[in-house]
Amino acid sequence: MNVYADNAATTRMSDTAIEVMLRCMKEEYGNPSSLYTIGQRAKEILEEARQTVAAEIGAEPGEIYFTSGGSEADNQAIRSAALLGKRKGKTHLISTAFEHHAVLHTLRKLEKEGFRVTLLDVHEDGLVRPEELEAAIGDDTCLVTVMYANNEIGTIQPVDEIAKICAAHGVLFHTDAVQAVAHVPIDVKKSGIDMLSASAHKFHGPKGTGILYVRRGVQLLNLIEGGGQEKGKRAGTENVAGIAGTAAALKETAEAMREKTEHITAMRDRLIEGLSKIPHSALNGDAKKRLPGNVNFCFEGIEGESLLLHLDDRGISASSGSACTSGSLDPSHVLLAIGRVHDVAHGSLRLTLGEDITEEEVDYLIENVAQVVEHLRGFSPVWRDLVQGKREFIL
Amino acid sequence: MNVYADNAATTRMSDTAIEVMLRCMKEEYGNPSSLYTIGQRAKEILEEARQTVAAEIGAEPGEIYFTSGGSEADNQAIRSAALLGKRKGKTHLISTAFEHHAVLHTLRKLEKEGFRVTLLDVHEDGLVRPEELEAAIGDDTCLVTVMYANNEIGTIQPVDEIAKICAAHGVLFHTDAVQAVAHVPIDVKKSGIDMLSASAHKFHGPKGTGILYVRRGVQLLNLIEGGGQEKGKRAGTENVAGIAGTAAALKETAEAMREKTEHITAMRDRLIEGLSKIPHSALNGDAKKRLPGNVNFCFEGIEGESLLLHLDDRGISASSGSACTSGSLDPSHVLLAIGRVHDVAHGSLRLTLGEDITEEEVDYLIENVAQVVEHLRGFSPVWRDLVQGKREFIL
Repeated sequence: MNVYADNAATTRMSDTAIEVMLRCMKEEYGNPSSLYTIGQRAKEILEEARQTVAAEIGAEPGEIYFTSGGSEADNQAIRSAALLGKRKGKTHLISTAFEHHAVLHTLRKLEKEGFRVTLLDVHEDGLVRPEELEAAIGDDTCLVTVMYANNEIGTIQPVDEIAKICAAHGVLFHTDAVQAVAHVPIDVKKSGIDMLSASAHKFHGPKGTGILYVRRGVQLLNLIEGGGQEKGKRAGTENVAGIAGTAAALKETAEAMREKTEHITAMRDRLIEGLSKIPHSALNGDAKKRLPGNVNFCFEGIEGESLLLHLDDRGISASSGSACTSGSLDPSHVLLAIGRVHDVAHGSLRLTLGEDITEEEVDYLIENVAQVVEHLRGFSPVWRDLVQGKREFIL
Repeated sequence: MNVYADNAATTRMSDTAIEVMLRCMKEEYGNPSSLYTIGQRAKEILEEARQTVAAEIGAEPGEIYFTSGGSEADNQAIRSAALLGKRKGKTHLISTAFEHHAVLHTLRKLEKEGFRVTLLDVHEDGLVRPEELEAAIGDDTCLVTVMYANNEIGTIQPVDEIAKICAAHGVLFHTDAVQAVAHVPIDVKKSGIDMLSASAHKFHGPKGTGILYVRRGVQLLNLIEGGGQEKGKRAGTENVAGIAGTAAALKETAEAMREKTEHITAMRDRLIEGLSKIPHSALNGDAKKRLPGNVNFCFEGIEGESLLLHLDDRGISASSGSACTSGSLDPSHVLLAIGRVHDVAHGSLRLTLGEDITEEEVDYLIENVAQVVEHLRGFSPVWRDLVQGKREFIL
C-alpha cells in the first residue's frame, strides 16, 4: 500500500487545475499587459482567477495580489509593514516563536536593520495567548504577524481575537495562512485580517504561485520592482497558467473540505488514538484546536530521520517536520517552542492526511509506524539506556 | 492571416516544455526537500534542469539559481551586489538609461537608500560605449549592470568588452539577458559575466520561472528569506514543473536558433527594408547589432496605440514597446534614451519575430503596417500640420 501522508509539505495536483493550466499553456500564451486580443484574453483569465480567489476568502478582487508563493507573500507583507511603520517611527514587530522560516528569517533580517522583535510563547499546546499578545503591544508596534495554523503541529491560532486586539491598538495584523487556506473556512473580513499569505501547492494547486491578500486601505510596498503588474505592487509578467490553476484548485479544494472536514477530522482522531498506544509517545500540540488532517507525534528513543526512511520503504511518505528545513540537523524550532527537549524533538513524525484518506490507510499508518518505532528502538542506545534506567523517560 | 509578432513580450509555449510540465504536474508532485522517494525524484528533476540550463550558457550547475522570473532575478542580483558593496564602503552603481524597469526601478530604490547611480548614454544607435563606461568607474563603484540586448529596440551591447573593463577594475558585472538567452549564443565564462538574469517565457518556456546565474565566488544575498531551497539563497518550494519546462524550452529554442538565426535575420532585414519605404519613418537602434528577430520603427504623425489596435483587427499582434509599460501614457524611456523626441517616440512600433516566421508573413506585416500608417495619418491633425508645413518633419 502507498500512502502519501505529507500534504503539509505539498499536495498532489488537482486534475481540474492541471486541465486549466494546460489550456492556458497551449492556447492562452498572451502577455496580460499586451493591448491586442490574445493579451487581453490572458488578462481576463487573470482577473477571473482573482475574483475566484477573493470570493473563497471573503475578500474583494482588488485586494488580491499574486506572488510566486507563500514565502514571497510573507516576505513582502512583513517587510512592507515594517518599512512603512518605520516611516512613522514605529519599529516594533510582534510574532511567535514557531512561525515558518519565511516569517522568522524575514524578522531576523529586519532585526539586523534596527527593528525590535518580540516572539510570543506558544505554550505546550501550541497556542498563542491573546492576553499575552495584547500585553506585548506598545506604542511603537507596527505589525503583529501570527500564523493561522502551524505547519508542523497544525494548531489553529485564535486569529479572530488577535485581529480584534490589533485593531483596537491600531496595529496591522498579518497572518501566514499557508497551511489553513482551503483547509479551514477563512473569511478575512469577518476575522478582521489586514494581510494574509497563502500558497497554491498546499491545496492541490501548482508550485510557484502564491496569494497575498492586503485589505483595501493598507499600503503595500514592492518586494520585486519593475513593470506595473499587479497594480504596480509586484513586478514580473504574470504566471497566467499558474494563477488560473491556483484559482481552480482553491475552489475545488475548499468545496471538497466543506464536505469532508468531518471525515478527515475523524480519520485524524483515529490516527491519534492509534499512535497514542505506542509506549512513550506523545501528540504535539492541542488535540482538537488543530488542522483536520494534521497529526504530529514524538517517540522517545528514536531518530525521526530513520523513521522516515523506514516508512518510505513501506510506501509511506511522511516527514519529521517542515520540508523546508529537512536535511537540517537541528531539531524542529516548532517542537522546541512548545517545550519539547532536544532529544525528544529529534524523534518527531508529522503525518498530514489528504481529503480522500481511508480508514484502511489510517490503520496501515498506525500499524507501520508502531512496527518501525519498535524496530528502531531495538537498535537505539538511547532506548537501551532508558529501559535500563540509566536515563529517565520524559514521555 | 494571423501573425504573432510580439515575441519580445512573450512567446508561444513549446509543446515539448508543456509535455515535460504535464508529466511533472501529474506524476512528480513531491516536494524536492522531502526525504522520501517521490520527494527525491522531484529533486532529481530539479538538478537535471539545473544542469541543462548551466550547459546552455556555459555555466556550472552550482552557479544556477531558479527564480520566479527575470524581474526577480534582476532585483536580487542588483540589490545583493549593492548591499554587499556598501559593506565595503562602495555605494556607486553604473547602468544605462534604457534598461528594463526591473533594473531601473531597483536602482531608483537603491538611490533613495543612499546609493549613487550613473546611467550611461546609449547614443542614437542604442549602444553603450565601453570607453564611457570605463570613464564612469570610480573607486566606490561596486556594480555595473548593462543589459545584454535591449527589450524594445533589440540592440546587443558590447558585453565582452564591458566584462573585461569591469574585471580590470574589480567591479561586479551583471547583465539582464532576458531578451538574449536562447536567442543569441551566450557563454558566461568566455564573456566573463559575473551575474546574469533570464526569463523562461521569452524562449517558449512557462511564465513564472526565471534564471539567475551567479559566478562561483561571487556572494549572493537573498531577496526572499525562508527555507533553505536553492542553496539557501532563494526561499520557497521550488516550482519543479516550471523549472523542468524552462530547461526543456531553453534547450529546444537554443538549438532551433543555432539553425535558424540566418533565416530570422534575413526575415528581419526584409521587414526593415519594407517598412523603411514608408515615408517619414525610421528604424530605432543599430540596423545590424540587434537581435535577429527585432524590428522597431517610429512613424511620424501617428499614435502607436491606434496603430496596434488597427493591426490587431488585421490579425497582427504587435506592441509599441515593452509590454510591462503598456497602458502608460509616457513615451518609451528607451526611445527617449536614444534621442527620439516625445512626438516621434509616441509613434513607435515593435515587431519581434518568432523562429518560424515566413516570407509571406513578413510581407503581410509590411503591407498592413504601411496601410494602417497611411490610414491613421489621414485622420491625424499632427500629420496635416506636417504636410501643410505648419510643423517641421523630424524623420
